[in-house]
Amino acid sequence: MIDLDEAIALVERLVEASAAEIRPRFRQPIASERKADISPVTEADRAAERAIRAILAAERPSDGIVGEEYGNSSGTSGLTWVIDPIDGTKAFMTGRSTFVTLIGLLDGDKPILGVIDQPITSDRWIGAAGRETHHNGRVVRARQTADIAEATFSTTDPNLFAEGDVGAYQRISSAAGMRTYGGDGLAYGLLASGWIDVVLEAGLKLHDFVALAPVVEGAGGVMTDWSGAKLLAGSDGRVLATGNAELHARLLASI
Amino acid sequence: MIDLDEAIALVERLVEASAAEIRPRFRQPIASERKADISPVTEADRAAERAIRAILAAERPSDGIVGEEYGNSSGTSGLTWVIDPIDGTKAFMTGRSTFVTLIGLLDGDKPILGVIDQPITSDRWIGAAGRETHHNGRVVRARQTADIAEATFSTTDPNLFAEGDVGAYQRISSAAGMRTYGGDGLAYGLLASGWIDVVLEAGLKLHDFVALAPVVEGAGGVMTDWSGAKLLAGSDGRVLATGNAELHARLLASI
Repeated sequence: MIDLDEAIALVERLVEASAAEIRPRFRQPIASERKADISPVTEADRAAERAIRAILAAERPSDGIVGEEYGNSSGTSGLTWVIDPIDGTKAFMTGRSTFVTLIGLLDGDKPILGVIDQPITSDRWIGAAGRETHHNGRVVRARQTADIAEATFSTTDPNLFAEGDVGAYQRISSAAGMRTYGGDGLAYGLLASGWIDVVLEAGLKLHDFVALAPVVEGAGGVMTDWSGAKLLAGSDGRVLATGNAELHARLLASI
Repeated sequence: MIDLDEAIALVERLVEASAAEIRPRFRQPIASERKADISPVTEADRAAERAIRAILAAERPSDGIVGEEYGNSSGTSGLTWVIDPIDGTKAFMTGRSTFVTLIGLLDGDKPILGVIDQPITSDRWIGAAGRETHHNGRVVRARQTADIAEATFSTTDPNLFAEGDVGAYQRISSAAGMRTYGGDGLAYGLLASGWIDVVLEAGLKLHDFVALAPVVEGAGGVMTDWSGAKLLAGSDGRVLATGNAELHARLLASI
């Protein structure tokens, strides 16, 4: 077990350590001859994850870890930290400060804590089970837009929907009052703050969604899979997040 | 006529005045019942353009002005200031700091000066005819990637290409090593800094592109219409910007 206040204080230190590795590597010149230009982001990714793991190894040795760069280690406490040091690799590589660091905490298979951190603009959302979500220390509430025609829709990339999923994307996005693209994990923080009403995505991995659900739910939003079930470690990566339950129910019906 | 050094100093003050109006209006709560949510962005747009116009009226009374919010006034000097206070309205409305303020200067029908300013992240690119482009006071150079397979492609929204234009978009974007979306005017600053290799767009208005060409060209990039002609006040809004002439020539051939 972990005390939630303690876990929140720890997760703040984790993203601060991560940010200290990411910031100096952002917007560094990339030699054009270095094919695919993968190196700089990988280096930032790895250094950030190492910094997070070093703290967890010292302070939470019996917890499990799922990390994008250094694989998984199972723990004995029933708690698992799920780390995505740079969510939004393309944004990072093209000099856009819209990538985020995601750290989530699973109790068994249930997300109980999440942080969405943007180290360049210093935007940090923290959500925890049964608590109000905070953005930079202030409580935030998602927007109460119930009508999809007045809603702002967001998804990272329309091309990420598989053939069987693209119909739901088209129905919902075309009904929305406004569509925006890009954003990755950042979009869920923006939803928690009431600036986006709907995020629909498919193909999310465990390290993409564990951190997001507590942030959305602590702001009064609803985030489930496409059947309406709560997100658990075994979810299939199709997610629907909305600012309120009424809009969620309506959109679920049209999926 | 205007001295270029004087014009550069002036344009810095113009975007500072504009930013002072935009910053306090960014991420303000938007009442969900306020339909279409247009008001906050319009208010920021208008206040920013008024601030810019006030300075120009006092210091450049014989120049013309083309502005998005307050229309056009013709001058007698042959110079025209072209203003887009918030390029990337959707980004502004959804709390993303990727919108920009664009101010360009036409000498006759020819762009001779441009600024791309992001007031939240404090990114400012300034380009002027025959000068090197600066980002936050430092000279920048576009990337020398000549092979589209290694290039990073960007466009604001794939849905903005008209039926006759979508083929060129599909050929070029699918050949690129990486595709990114969103960005509006910011993408051209990122190209000047060497973080993006190609931007292809259609439907740009005068206030969208006048500021961009000097920034791209002063960094060693090439920005033309789809026939390869230099951008002038009368251009049709189809633009191709690349980091270097070799890549530009190849892509022009495939349009």
